[in-house]
Amino acid sequence: MRICAVIMAGGVGERFWPKSRQALPKQFLKIGNNDKTMIQLTVERILPVIDIENIFIVTNKKYKKLVSEQILNLPERNIICEPAGRNTAPCLALAASIIEKIYGNSIMVSLASDHLIADQKKFHEILNTAVNKASSGSNLITLGIAPQYAETGYGYIKYSKSDYEDGCCKVEKFVEKPNLQKAEEYVAAGSYLWNSGMFVWQTSVILDKFKELMPEIYLGVKKISDAFGTDKYEDVLNEIFSAFSSESIDYGIMEKTSPIYTIPSDFGWDDVGSWLSIDRIMDKDENGNIITGNSVNVESKNITIIGSKKLIAAVGLEDIVIVDTDDAVLICSKNKSQDIKKVLQELKNQNKGQYL
Amino acid sequence: MRICAVIMAGGVGERFWPKSRQALPKQFLKIGNNDKTMIQLTVERILPVIDIENIFIVTNKKYKKLVSEQILNLPERNIICEPAGRNTAPCLALAASIIEKIYGNSIMVSLASDHLIADQKKFHEILNTAVNKASSGSNLITLGIAPQYAETGYGYIKYSKSDYEDGCCKVEKFVEKPNLQKAEEYVAAGSYLWNSGMFVWQTSVILDKFKELMPEIYLGVKKISDAFGTDKYEDVLNEIFSAFSSESIDYGIMEKTSPIYTIPSDFGWDDVGSWLSIDRIMDKDENGNIITGNSVNVESKNITIIGSKKLIAAVGLEDIVIVDTDDAVLICSKNKSQDIKKVLQELKNQNKGQYL
Repeated sequence: MRICAVIMAGGVGERFWPKSRQALPKQFLKIGNNDKTMIQLTVERILPVIDIENIFIVTNKKYKKLVSEQILNLPERNIICEPAGRNTAPCLALAASIIEKIYGNSIMVSLASDHLIADQKKFHEILNTAVNKASSGSNLITLGIAPQYAETGYGYIKYSKSDYEDGCCKVEKFVEKPNLQKAEEYVAAGSYLWNSGMFVWQTSVILDKFKELMPEIYLGVKKISDAFGTDKYEDVLNEIFSAFSSESIDYGIMEKTSPIYTIPSDFGWDDVGSWLSIDRIMDKDENGNIITGNSVNVESKNITIIGSKKLIAAVGLEDIVIVDTDDAVLICSKNKSQDIKKVLQELKNQNKGQYL
Repeated sequence: MRICAVIMAGGVGERFWPKSRQALPKQFLKIGNNDKTMIQLTVERILPVIDIENIFIVTNKKYKKLVSEQILNLPERNIICEPAGRNTAPCLALAASIIEKIYGNSIMVSLASDHLIADQKKFHEILNTAVNKASSGSNLITLGIAPQYAETGYGYIKYSKSDYEDGCCKVEKFVEKPNLQKAEEYVAAGSYLWNSGMFVWQTSVILDKFKELMPEIYLGVKKISDAFGTDKYEDVLNEIFSAFSSESIDYGIMEKTSPIYTIPSDFGWDDVGSWLSIDRIMDKDENGNIITGNSVNVESKNITIIGSKKLIAAVGLEDIVIVDTDDAVLICSKNKSQDIKKVLQELKNQNKGQYL
């Protein structure tokens, strides 16, 4: 069976402000020491397993040009443009429906465009296991990440170690983002995985699930994919997709059906979800600092400076992230990095939209 | 007797980096909400008491142009240019000697160019008291500031409340910059004042003291003032002044002679000695923050942002000073503001002299 990838690239990466902007979100940026952008790395990572003509990128229409510029050999047809972001359920339903329209029933590997994976070999092995499991029947497979610490920013997957077949474990339940105490319990228990949002299934299988559990989305994407390839496509897409309500596939499908399989994965996954993640992906000096760009540090501890051209001088700071860009500098306490979104709100309030 | 002012304006204001630079030090900047520079405020403050032709400004020769540009009516003759900074003893000896050469024996009021005084009326009253005391004999008068808190960055003056005449108290001793415990004892004792570095005396009196206690400087400045007004002046000045060793007048004269008088002063003096002093001279919001320029703050406490054009976004910070300039941003823990000098050293080490 043909294997296709669906890379979701419609996000705005607010937590990576001020580097990530509405006009150039995180997935189109080079993060850490990488000389390629996040989406380039994502495509490169799956190319040994999936041919370029089978890679589909779902993005907001305003990022179509960025995708074409960054992923040079991608057929234009394979860029699926959302007129507006509606979370992962409409996005993946649309991709499944279009892939099925083009290729007939296929294996679909759903990936985020802005995550890092350190161990490509392990990733490919696990992907193969998942693809085999998906090929063999109406199975939904989600890749679960062996938790490295008690992260409160992810949902968790509770799985059964005993209920194991074809290299996959049965999911017992999905759990919402926990508080710190719960997260610590999950990590200690050893039977919980981070929900990474990477999925593998057949297009026909997931579309059946949509038909059952999210019928409006199912009917909508069917209409859109019927128009795919015709001159009505854009109008139909704009009208129907914009009318979908925002819903995640986790909430809309995964939490409401069974069986679901997971593969406990340990391939150095990082969602690079905030500036804090830089601490995990870049080397630190003996005082726990990461100092880059035109920067000077005097007696700071555990600070991260993502410097640029302007001189940044840090004196006696602790646990702070500093990010310089051409027109804005962020100075953020590491334990408040989730509050960067409030800066964006404040900028809107102050009519400073040029910085969003 | 004629009253002259000597304003010392040769400092480089390192602790106000990055606003204060070698090419434009603190005394030539507008600090806080003032629409005039520090040196302009200093001249304006004494103009009701001392005529412009009796105001002398001692500065480094590289700042001569800045002084002329900022103090428009000042006779060029009244700008005394040091070829190199040699601390306050050579500076004030030279000024005294030149004033005596021009005007004969005069009252000399020595002031810093980069301090703020909130209550001008009180300042003038106390200055008059000091001038009267100086006029009446060979008295050295230093203005002592009633301490507002246990500052460890100033020297202190211990004075006798009982030994009081003509509105002046006798100084018992000068004490070096104390540690915090000592400073607290001094403030609690009520018989200590901050040594503000403002002096009043007759030129003949202070020159006699130099003759007695710092004879090399005395002989040197005599030679320089002998050449004053001739075409040899600059050569003599450069040669002799540069050869002086650096010494403060406190250490060289004030601590080694008696009697010295002080006037306990309470006119809202502030030496604006570091970025911390901005906390004293500008209004704070309800969370103790001072936010200026193109800045956005989310949930920070007790921070100060001296913003400029570039957007500064602060998130969840505490007790931090941020200063933005065209080419550099300082982010400094408030309790480490004395370490800004180490940034300058580091910039030298890194061959980034353009930021000094």
